[in-house]
Amino acid sequence: MSTYHYYFRDDYSEGCHPNILKALQETALSQQIGYGNDDYSAEAKNLIKQLLPGHEADIHFVSGGTQANLIVIAAALRSYESVVSAQTGHINGHEGGAIEASGHRVEAITTIDGKLRVAQLSPLLTQLDVVGSTQPKMVYISNTTELGTVYSKAELAALSEFCRAQGWYLYLDGARLPAALTAPGNDLTLADVAELTDAFYIGGTKNGALLGEAIVITNPELKTGFKHYLKQKGAMLAKGRVLGLQFRELFRDNLIFDLAAHANARALAMVAAIESLGYTFMVPPASNQLFPVLPEPIIQELAKTYLFHRWQAVDERHTAIRLVTSWATPAAACDRFIDDLEQLTQTYQR
Amino acid sequence: MSTYHYYFRDDYSEGCHPNILKALQETALSQQIGYGNDDYSAEAKNLIKQLLPGHEADIHFVSGGTQANLIVIAAALRSYESVVSAQTGHINGHEGGAIEASGHRVEAITTIDGKLRVAQLSPLLTQLDVVGSTQPKMVYISNTTELGTVYSKAELAALSEFCRAQGWYLYLDGARLPAALTAPGNDLTLADVAELTDAFYIGGTKNGALLGEAIVITNPELKTGFKHYLKQKGAMLAKGRVLGLQFRELFRDNLIFDLAAHANARALAMVAAIESLGYTFMVPPASNQLFPVLPEPIIQELAKTYLFHRWQAVDERHTAIRLVTSWATPAAACDRFIDDLEQLTQTYQR
Amino acid sequence: MSTYHYYFRDDYSEGCHPNILKALQETALSQQIGYGNDDYSAEAKNLIKQLLPGHEADIHFVSGGTQANLIVIAAALRSYESVVSAQTGHINGHEGGAIEASGHRVEAITTIDGKLRVAQLSPLLTQLDVVGSTQPKMVYISNTTELGTVYSKAELAALSEFCRAQGWYLYLDGARLPAALTAPGNDLTLADVAELTDAFYIGGTKNGALLGEAIVITNPELKTGFKHYLKQKGAMLAKGRVLGLQFRELFRDNLIFDLAAHANARALAMVAAIESLGYTFMVPPASNQLFPVLPEPIIQELAKTYLFHRWQAVDERHTAIRLVTSWATPAAACDRFIDDLEQLTQTYQR
Amino acid sequence: MSTYHYYFRDDYSEGCHPNILKALQETALSQQIGYGNDDYSAEAKNLIKQLLPGHEADIHFVSGGTQANLIVIAAALRSYESVVSAQTGHINGHEGGAIEASGHRVEAITTIDGKLRVAQLSPLLTQLDVVGSTQPKMVYISNTTELGTVYSKAELAALSEFCRAQGWYLYLDGARLPAALTAPGNDLTLADVAELTDAFYIGGTKNGALLGEAIVITNPELKTGFKHYLKQKGAMLAKGRVLGLQFRELFRDNLIFDLAAHANARALAMVAAIESLGYTFMVPPASNQLFPVLPEPIIQELAKTYLFHRWQAVDERHTAIRLVTSWATPAAACDRFIDDLEQLTQTYQR
Repeated sequence: MSTYHYYFRDDYSEGCHPNILKALQETALSQQIGYGNDDYSAEAKNLIKQLLPGHEADIHFVSGGTQANLIVIAAALRSYESVVSAQTGHINGHEGGAIEASGHRVEAITTIDGKLRVAQLSPLLTQLDVVGSTQPKMVYISNTTELGTVYSKAELAALSEFCRAQGWYLYLDGARLPAALTAPGNDLTLADVAELTDAFYIGGTKNGALLGEAIVITNPELKTGFKHYLKQKGAMLAKGRVLGLQFRELFRDNLIFDLAAHANARALAMVAAIESLGYTFMVPPASNQLFPVLPEPIIQELAKTYLFHRWQAVDERHTAIRLVTSWATPAAACDRFIDDLEQLTQTYQR
Repeated sequence: MSTYHYYFRDDYSEGCHPNILKALQETALSQQIGYGNDDYSAEAKNLIKQLLPGHEADIHFVSGGTQANLIVIAAALRSYESVVSAQTGHINGHEGGAIEASGHRVEAITTIDGKLRVAQLSPLLTQLDVVGSTQPKMVYISNTTELGTVYSKAELAALSEFCRAQGWYLYLDGARLPAALTAPGNDLTLADVAELTDAFYIGGTKNGALLGEAIVITNPELKTGFKHYLKQKGAMLAKGRVLGLQFRELFRDNLIFDLAAHANARALAMVAAIESLGYTFMVPPASNQLFPVLPEPIIQELAKTYLFHRWQAVDERHTAIRLVTSWATPAAACDRFIDDLEQLTQTYQR
Repeated sequence: MSTYHYYFRDDYSEGCHPNILKALQETALSQQIGYGNDDYSAEAKNLIKQLLPGHEADIHFVSGGTQANLIVIAAALRSYESVVSAQTGHINGHEGGAIEASGHRVEAITTIDGKLRVAQLSPLLTQLDVVGSTQPKMVYISNTTELGTVYSKAELAALSEFCRAQGWYLYLDGARLPAALTAPGNDLTLADVAELTDAFYIGGTKNGALLGEAIVITNPELKTGFKHYLKQKGAMLAKGRVLGLQFRELFRDNLIFDLAAHANARALAMVAAIESLGYTFMVPPASNQLFPVLPEPIIQELAKTYLFHRWQAVDERHTAIRLVTSWATPAAACDRFIDDLEQLTQTYQR
Repeated sequence: MSTYHYYFRDDYSEGCHPNILKALQETALSQQIGYGNDDYSAEAKNLIKQLLPGHEADIHFVSGGTQANLIVIAAALRSYESVVSAQTGHINGHEGGAIEASGHRVEAITTIDGKLRVAQLSPLLTQLDVVGSTQPKMVYISNTTELGTVYSKAELAALSEFCRAQGWYLYLDGARLPAALTAPGNDLTLADVAELTDAFYIGGTKNGALLGEAIVITNPELKTGFKHYLKQKGAMLAKGRVLGLQFRELFRDNLIFDLAAHANARALAMVAAIESLGYTFMVPPASNQLFPVLPEPIIQELAKTYLFHRWQAVDERHTAIRLVTSWATPAAACDRFIDDLEQLTQTYQR
């Protein structure tokens, strides 16, 4: 009995897509082997692998993004090795110290738009072989980033080239990878991501699943013993079928990408209207996360009927808020928000 | 298209109970706050708390049993403190070293039936304050145990009294607690468990849920910062609603206990028949896990049409197997198994 | 057979003070109990406690500063709690990730002179209770700092007040605490340090000992089980006497402070000469570490006959180097260095 | 002012050998590079390498045995891999959980004499690739063992062969390796130890040094990044020279082996006398640790004038005590002990 018109707070406010519920119902009494060795997980892996021709990928399903990140990083790094991340990277400030709790330093780099560039990585080379310094060994990026921005193929290729030259791993957090791959102007494919990184994960939680992320490992060095890490970190579900079945549905007939395209379209449809009201964005809108900069009084009014995050104060009177659309966001909710913003703008500008 | 008549392998071979699916469907589009702050989790916690009158319990939902164990133990212990477990305890040999990976030694004690007794704990007192020894600080038990046995109220009270006298925590792994509380002859209630332990968890995965365990903490010392541990270990689901909703359904109208009683009844109905065929059990049958000792040739025949675990060789020609029934096991499957065992017994005894 | 005139590289280039060698010789065949329970450790603790009237301090001797830091921090913090440090703090970039390897995030703060101020701590309060953020619980400072600067009593009192208001610990790395307490203008005593912090250590390695640091804990919360942490981290020497005996000698008749005063005096005697040659310092000289900013060609010449660290490029043609004097630095070495710098200055300025 | 005639408590009750003190004195004012890059460490490594012809060994000096063990094991193992040890092994119950705190399970095996045999390792093979089980990857042995027993070359070769066939590491804790290599009947050389293991350490603390152990790594897989582990675990002394110099003295002219031979000779000289008084030993005497089984009243009398460990109750009236001799034990102390034991035997046998 929410008192809000709509939650633009995140892309995990709803339950799951109907196809998933239908599949859960149809398979409820089928007996399956546990711990990921079920038929549905096998089917899901096959569907994903069809998008990665020529790659020998190991695929593992886990229940959440922090879990995916901490296990991949812990499995990849020796205790003195560190992972490089944008300051805004999810692992740097949004996972409760999960990476440090695994024993690894996050080397945080300030960026303008959440994207890491090669020029920012070079200074880390001075740490190499210095015994008092942690030894960078992995670069962590998110696509879309935590600011909704999207890597181009050229940008990802440049990072990949740098990492390979150093013998570092490139790991991509794909909690919103479907949104990135369906963003306007994107020139990356899932196969490109597999080609240019050593490991990545594809988010289910933020793309229509009840829960679940699919970790894809292409670098053989990172494959060894991965199931043991999963078990040891409490990430191996007895009913692994629950994760496999959902990814089977999401990757059947491109569903996951259709859902992401929907979310992107909903958000980007609001951009022109917001700009026409005279507002700017903290970062250029590119996917299903928008960061409009609004005056404080208007934010306070909007907050009475919409749920969203205050992201960052821009100046004394303006703050960037975050609006997120999901696979389930109806056009009507967006229209209503734009109408309300228009009205508030008129009220407060007088 | 399984080639087996039935899986007696475990109690997590099926999906979930229809009530859960129905609730997932009804709530699919409802928008909820993430990370466990949703309405359904609140409702579920209230239902559980109604069974714990007089207790100020903190309740947290996580996705699996290893996860529950490793987080409770890591949150409770300083790095030099250890946890005491039966040799057969789940944390000792079935969680891939999860407890040790959290930095803690498991002090394993050999038992005859999976149950720890006070007399077995006293020798550990010699380690106290010895700087070269780990310092025991928590006793871990399972109920039902990994061998299907059940603690009486007197036994649990004795352990509780010992632990409190030492300032140690008593933690109960309740992956199959509903089976224990509905076992024939059981004299414990959920409220007793809350009273006599410092923390425990109630299993959903093995009792009709898709996934999920409810951690219940009654000792205030163990409550501090628990949500931070959950986040840091990757156990806090963005859609915490998925766990909350399932426990709401399981605790509505006693469903979880009815399902466990069903599983127990199915297993125990086979006991007399197995005994009448002249077989014994490795441990006395008490709940939904049976450990009949069978001749090797018969086990090999049964393994062609039933899935189950070989548990332990008893002598050169006999092995104890494990048969597990679940909330979904039909009487027909059990009957067929007994028929087949009878026939094989006749064949091989000639 | 060094080819260098002198090492100004650090304050641990020499062996140890003759009093220590004499004591080692006199006690060589005395039989003592191991693991810190020897007579000499008891005597050393008593001498230190005499400087801390009114304090119930626990004192533990360990072999090095990184070891002291990682154990104090690991013993003090829960896994989701973090430690705040200046960017230049020893734990942040000079201990090979030791703190992160213990599971804790270092929250690094940029400073101008290596000293933390209260105004820089306040922004961290926004992290409190945010589940995705680590929870700051300890402030780490060094005195003297890694830049040779010294905290005043008022500055330390302000940090202490802030920390106590938050329920945070204040921990002081005293690898060069004797240098701080004997620096010109210092108004702190060892008793003040004990009063205003929760724990600190007094460096022996950089003040005339072969090795050894004395950890002093005044906050009772941090005392519990400390010896178990020492053992578990490999810091408890079988012959703890070796550490105790050295601190007995260092604290007899104020020796440690005399040695530090000597080191300070040697360094500060060079300041006026360096300035008179027209050079500035990266940070104002205050103790036995100097950071003169010199032209590259002169640095390259000096590096042929003196060993020192290049600290940081200041502009394209100038770099701050670090010169460190020790308890053993003779006046002649400093005089020669100044002479050589003067000559080089004349050569290169023509 | 000890009230005891003598300490037979351990082999680290004294300070250090005069040669070490002399070298410390002679080098006190020599300036050296820190962190193990000093001349003395280089000289010590060369002396040790001369005993290991044909081996490319990496040698690192650390301050204690627990530190050596925890770093070698942490550096060698992935988090899901475990180390196998005798129940009596130092890492299993005498290091305060140091190995578990590094995240690794110790798989403890009961032995009769502290020595592991191949037949005891085979059952661990059933754990391989089982996801709920830790994965054994290293075998840890001590020589001499914690019970004073000594491995023969054939025994060590058999363990080595087994480990290499499995791809496991064999690591030897040599806190008392000099005692083993100089024990009567020993047929192992230091070169054999290097040949048959992947890493080992040679104890200085128990063989005449103030402190220090020399880790020797022959398997290239274990060499990578070792210095970073040392730094991160707080094991890299600023004045690494203190360790290097001691090992230079110990390995000059065979000193360390002469000292160990002295300790062995002192202990073994007491064996015949003890046996002639009618006493047995818990394990057959082989080196500088003896475990005579004595009647309780006699132990209580002896404890008034000698310091030693009560090791283990043998029956209600008899206990095995541990007597340890060192490089410094005078013959007179042993003679007096035997005299006293003889007198007590007469008194109590009447």
